[in-house]
Amino acid sequence: MSAVVAVLGAGAWGTTFAKVLADAGCEVRLWGRDDAVARSVTEDHRNEKYLPGVDLPASVTGTTDPASALAGASIVVAAVPSQVARVTLGRMASLVEPGAVVVSLMKGVELSTDRLMSEVVAEALGVPGERVAVVSGPNLAKEIAVGQPTATVVASTSEDTARIVARACTSSYFRPYTNDDVVGVELCGAVKNVIALAVGIAHGLGYGWNTTATLITRGLVEITRLGLALGAQAETFAGLAGMGDLVATCASPLSRNHTLGSHLGRGLSLDDAIAATGGTAEGVKSSQSVLELAGKHGVEMPITAGVVAVVTGEMTVAELGPALLSRPQKPEGR
Amino acid sequence: MSAVVAVLGAGAWGTTFAKVLADAGCEVRLWGRDDAVARSVTEDHRNEKYLPGVDLPASVTGTTDPASALAGASIVVAAVPSQVARVTLGRMASLVEPGAVVVSLMKGVELSTDRLMSEVVAEALGVPGERVAVVSGPNLAKEIAVGQPTATVVASTSEDTARIVARACTSSYFRPYTNDDVVGVELCGAVKNVIALAVGIAHGLGYGWNTTATLITRGLVEITRLGLALGAQAETFAGLAGMGDLVATCASPLSRNHTLGSHLGRGLSLDDAIAATGGTAEGVKSSQSVLELAGKHGVEMPITAGVVAVVTGEMTVAELGPALLSRPQKPEGR
Repeated sequence: MSAVVAVLGAGAWGTTFAKVLADAGCEVRLWGRDDAVARSVTEDHRNEKYLPGVDLPASVTGTTDPASALAGASIVVAAVPSQVARVTLGRMASLVEPGAVVVSLMKGVELSTDRLMSEVVAEALGVPGERVAVVSGPNLAKEIAVGQPTATVVASTSEDTARIVARACTSSYFRPYTNDDVVGVELCGAVKNVIALAVGIAHGLGYGWNTTATLITRGLVEITRLGLALGAQAETFAGLAGMGDLVATCASPLSRNHTLGSHLGRGLSLDDAIAATGGTAEGVKSSQSVLELAGKHGVEMPITAGVVAVVTGEMTVAELGPALLSRPQKPEGR
Repeated sequence: MSAVVAVLGAGAWGTTFAKVLADAGCEVRLWGRDDAVARSVTEDHRNEKYLPGVDLPASVTGTTDPASALAGASIVVAAVPSQVARVTLGRMASLVEPGAVVVSLMKGVELSTDRLMSEVVAEALGVPGERVAVVSGPNLAKEIAVGQPTATVVASTSEDTARIVARACTSSYFRPYTNDDVVGVELCGAVKNVIALAVGIAHGLGYGWNTTATLITRGLVEITRLGLALGAQAETFAGLAGMGDLVATCASPLSRNHTLGSHLGRGLSLDDAIAATGGTAEGVKSSQSVLELAGKHGVEMPITAGVVAVVTGEMTVAELGPALLSRPQKPEGR
């Protein structure tokens, strides 16, 4: 089977996933706004702007025209910035083939609506929820792009949809596991960035691996608590899209959340930290939505609350550590 | 309350825990074999051999005499090498005060008997199981020794015993949580070294954070599977002594298991890797005992089995990756 796939968004992760699909045997059209990027993908098999140094298969072609990307595509992959996804994808809704399956690679919570990305994608493209899948896991794009073996999770409420997507992206170095817990998988993807910000702050303050490991462990506990309140399954949080992605994102010093957090930890203001990072990070944008969502469901999230307090300037980073450590003594557990 | 505590074993972790206890207000006698170390602890408040650069409180004194360490001690902390624990501690059994509580800081499985360390300690010192506690968590000694804030787990089948130990070691930078799942906590401490060896091998082979995160995640799944078969509680594995310690041990590049594993990953033989590391690592010794224990209970542990195959020379490191990746496609889950 050689599926035709449209990948919407030619950033690092969209381009990497296009490569994965092509290596798995698909014909891939990679849509992006940047004409030079699109031409270079088709002619030089490269996207130097977002994925420097990586050769793309010849079966990936670039385009700036949504219509030619989407014509005949049985799978549509959405990889645009999450806060503009509704508008960007909405304009392309009429071009999606009837019956096509849609995959979201996007992470985060839409600020104005508190919706998760699979919901935004379904609404914006006008496809039913059972034809939407999300892909998430310990998936640092730069490592996958050079062919390092990686496992991931493909989640959909429909087993058929999950299987179609898993089959389309399975290759010698990319191994998808299917899962039906879309809410759990997406929540992990959204909240991990907040925890990565907390880990970055701790590093900036000079703390080491014990603190990192503790923040990751207690962070997963609070993500799980929120997930269970939203109807997700506990196993998802212990899996690759939960713990796996959280460890990869938080332990690697390369993510934007980590970098921005460590600037905050060293005492920079949020504006200065954003400037030093060269842009904001997903965790900054998501932290308040996540805390609001938790509040609505009566769920306590002390690490997320601490990050929000620092980001909004209610608390200094120096006050954050003691605030987390001074919580009352108790038996371990959720 | 100012408890008198005997710490048996003046290595890095024993010395660090002596400092934690002293900072929490205890009077601590640190026993070790090395006369120069003992004298230096008492006179210079230093253990340059095993914990260089760290000042110890004056309330820690060193001794090479078990009788003077143990006289009047209401808490006895065992921190000797795990494979000689039975013999070393057995000689001191008659010196332990009646009613004293015993704490094991040791990790691993005794090779000849497949016993966990709390059992070895109880048998060797002749104290009932309910007076034994184990301490385990994301506790890299070097970070705690410089006062970085750290959480840990104190586990005992007796709530009283766990509380006595937790109270004795609580300080501004060291926060214990109590737990009654001794088997779960000890199993995590033993198997984490095997997973750290696997992560080291992967790094030596050139793999990055996605692989590290996947090995940690799937490693925790197989530790949990074994633990449930042995009657442990699932929550322990998701906690600080499980996931927390696993992440700290595997993500930090500083552990002996990681170093030895990465030498194996770069193609050295086991003997050469041990020589290059300057000694063997706990994971090498534990891996076969753990696999035997799993076999007895019919539990599958593919990562542990892979490490054993590499350590015994049945498999090359180049064969290990494909062997783990080629397991059959399936939905995620335990």
